[in-house]
Amino acid sequence: MSAFKAIRYLMSPSSIAVVGASRTPGKIGHEILKNIIEYGFKGQVYPVNPRATEVLGLKCYPSVSSIGKPVDLAIIVIPAQAVLPVIRDCVKSKVKVAAVITSGFGEVGNKQLEAEVVKTAREGGMRILGPNIFGVYCAASDLNATFGPKDVLKGSIAFITQSGALGIALMGWTITEKIGLSAIVSIGNKADLDDADFIEYFNWDNSTRVILIYIEGVRDGRRFMEAALETSINKPIIALKSGVSKRGMVAASSHTGSLAGSAQVYKAAFKQSGVLIASTVSQAFDWARMFSSNFKFYGYNTVIITNGGGVGVMASDACEKLSIPLIDPSEELKNKLRRFMPPFGSVKNPIDLTGMASEEDYKGAISTCLSSEEVNAIIVLYCETAVTNPVMIAKTIASSIKAQDKPVVASLIGGSKTQLAINELNYRGVPAYNEPYKAVDSLSAFFKWNKWRTKSY
Amino acid sequence: MSAFKAIRYLMSPSSIAVVGASRTPGKIGHEILKNIIEYGFKGQVYPVNPRATEVLGLKCYPSVSSIGKPVDLAIIVIPAQAVLPVIRDCVKSKVKVAAVITSGFGEVGNKQLEAEVVKTAREGGMRILGPNIFGVYCAASDLNATFGPKDVLKGSIAFITQSGALGIALMGWTITEKIGLSAIVSIGNKADLDDADFIEYFNWDNSTRVILIYIEGVRDGRRFMEAALETSINKPIIALKSGVSKRGMVAASSHTGSLAGSAQVYKAAFKQSGVLIASTVSQAFDWARMFSSNFKFYGYNTVIITNGGGVGVMASDACEKLSIPLIDPSEELKNKLRRFMPPFGSVKNPIDLTGMASEEDYKGAISTCLSSEEVNAIIVLYCETAVTNPVMIAKTIASSIKAQDKPVVASLIGGSKTQLAINELNYRGVPAYNEPYKAVDSLSAFFKWNKWRTKSY
Repeated sequence: MSAFKAIRYLMSPSSIAVVGASRTPGKIGHEILKNIIEYGFKGQVYPVNPRATEVLGLKCYPSVSSIGKPVDLAIIVIPAQAVLPVIRDCVKSKVKVAAVITSGFGEVGNKQLEAEVVKTAREGGMRILGPNIFGVYCAASDLNATFGPKDVLKGSIAFITQSGALGIALMGWTITEKIGLSAIVSIGNKADLDDADFIEYFNWDNSTRVILIYIEGVRDGRRFMEAALETSINKPIIALKSGVSKRGMVAASSHTGSLAGSAQVYKAAFKQSGVLIASTVSQAFDWARMFSSNFKFYGYNTVIITNGGGVGVMASDACEKLSIPLIDPSEELKNKLRRFMPPFGSVKNPIDLTGMASEEDYKGAISTCLSSEEVNAIIVLYCETAVTNPVMIAKTIASSIKAQDKPVVASLIGGSKTQLAINELNYRGVPAYNEPYKAVDSLSAFFKWNKWRTKSY
Repeated sequence: MSAFKAIRYLMSPSSIAVVGASRTPGKIGHEILKNIIEYGFKGQVYPVNPRATEVLGLKCYPSVSSIGKPVDLAIIVIPAQAVLPVIRDCVKSKVKVAAVITSGFGEVGNKQLEAEVVKTAREGGMRILGPNIFGVYCAASDLNATFGPKDVLKGSIAFITQSGALGIALMGWTITEKIGLSAIVSIGNKADLDDADFIEYFNWDNSTRVILIYIEGVRDGRRFMEAALETSINKPIIALKSGVSKRGMVAASSHTGSLAGSAQVYKAAFKQSGVLIASTVSQAFDWARMFSSNFKFYGYNTVIITNGGGVGVMASDACEKLSIPLIDPSEELKNKLRRFMPPFGSVKNPIDLTGMASEEDYKGAISTCLSSEEVNAIIVLYCETAVTNPVMIAKTIASSIKAQDKPVVASLIGGSKTQLAINELNYRGVPAYNEPYKAVDSLSAFFKWNKWRTKSY
């Protein structure tokens, strides 16, 4: 079976067997099954465990072949030495794809067993995800087949991770940071299905707008770059590449068994393929937030709209640093903008509505810039004041840009109400951050990708 | 009166007059008085307003001179054109220092009135903070004389800000981010008391461990640098300098009336004076968090302790990028560390306790490294797992390093429980962050400052 077809079964199976399903809370074979049930997967779920007749209210089977009905996806949570016979049984039962959660394969030197598992599967027409993974999540099919947190938020970011521990921890992070995901894939040892296969899949997948990949090393560099290049033209790929330092490379290689490769080589290859390289976890998700919105690229001419001089200055500095051109508004535009500020406001760019700015002032200034052909993108800044309600400001900003696809990013600084306002904006599809730099940096990533793309078309 | 003496009165007054105290909620003259009362200021508070007999339950006076008792600090919240007569009345009443909240002075071109206010005050032996400020906060005297958020957390970071809007917004930010402050000063137009005066004061002030200053422009560069140099030897100064780009400079100059100056000049001058330049708001507070802990400098030799290979690799990369030397542990140290991990863990640096790491494993590994002379500093990393409770891990980390002053920074990635764990660590004096880069970056700032200091002694 092709990787693409196998991944479709993996992401949207009609039926799942959980081999190693357990009645003991805390055990991985229990937690995965529980997540599948509680997240609301609509297809068939078959626990498999020869020592149980029922697990979590579902009838339990002694083996995959004993289920007697078609199984698309087998999730395998049993000790490494018991995996091979189960794979044979899966092949016999015409299972399409197996996600092997189990560790103790290539990453601890047990490469022969790993190779045999893959060989057995592929000869039988089945494909393998893993081994050494925490599972898979797909928003579109309500499938949380991971032993990570349950309440993953739905969105349009596909997250591929080589590191299991980091991946699970970041699942939790996305929930507290209110970041929505279309898919999560733990690729682990990637003995069969690998990064390139998933990049190709997510390129096709309509529920995914941006791909975020945590990567330590790549096996087949050429194939990865080909898949990345083809995909980047269509949707952005953000890479969080670790193992770029000498010690990091050694650690990555002992940790995953894959060669990390020199920073320079990766950087050059990624750049050529249009892959955006993020420096930190938060930067990667900041960018992903930007790309998960529904904006079109109109050009680089940008204005800053602010209610605080200080943050306006900071954002101007960041724009210069990140090569975002700030326009000088025409007299016509200036005159229109004057209506939304007191006399001591500024219609130069940054457009300073002053601390007295109301929701209506923000609305007026944003709408004016959105309908101006001089402006291709807007950075909206807000400092929490005693006279404004941040959540109302957020709602007004969001409604001002509704049905518009000109890029607008926001930075809101303040206390707990401002945090709610940031969440509100993000929820309504306006990328919003808690400081000016992040907003400017994310817009810059959007420009960078579009620049590469325009050149490459 | 000397600036130093005036600032002591400003920070720890025995008595305060609020000139322009108002009974109307939402008005600045109401909100400041309310904050002063509700934050629990222990000294005398006298509302002054000729059109009221009582404000917020306190007897109200028609003028400062009519109070008939000594007043250390006058907070002035009346229109600009009414300020001068009040200053004269304050001088007559031997007020020590006046904080002029009122705007509409130098920042809108009204420089002559501003100069006259300062001249009148100084000739009468009184000093002026402001005008065009949001007030002052001092943890030691339970004084929140600002119209910003009330519930400021006490700590050891002194925050000086030139921007009012940003300053107030950041007050809210420190509350939600659980950052403790020793003082907040809005310096506004700094017509009299300025950055340098406050830097000198906080150098002396024992409740302050680190000074964070948001600065757009400096009037007397030489004096600023002298104060900064003398202070930096003793405690770190973190500068958030904005207005470093061309457009940012213009905006800063129109916004505050002060010359921003070229980025190069500031960078060189700051560097020479040991001032640490932060690039973003969050970086400035990340560093401040590090410096507000009670660590001593033992040298640069660092180890990483982790429960996740991926984050270990990321932290290694960050250490190389930020020039933090990671040691190769001796055989003796390695043997000691092996007790706290399964056989497939790693005693190389990063020390990988694996995903199976328990609280006791963290405790053992941290204690071992703290008592080893090979190790000068520790970076502790944690990825939330299903088998550990992040808050218990945090408590264990904190108790392991109790009464030790060797630097330990932590990064914890995960969901809402992990956020609680981060708060717990910060509360207990262990700087903790939500991703590896921030922890490494903050340790790097600590090293950088100590390097400069060691050279300069």
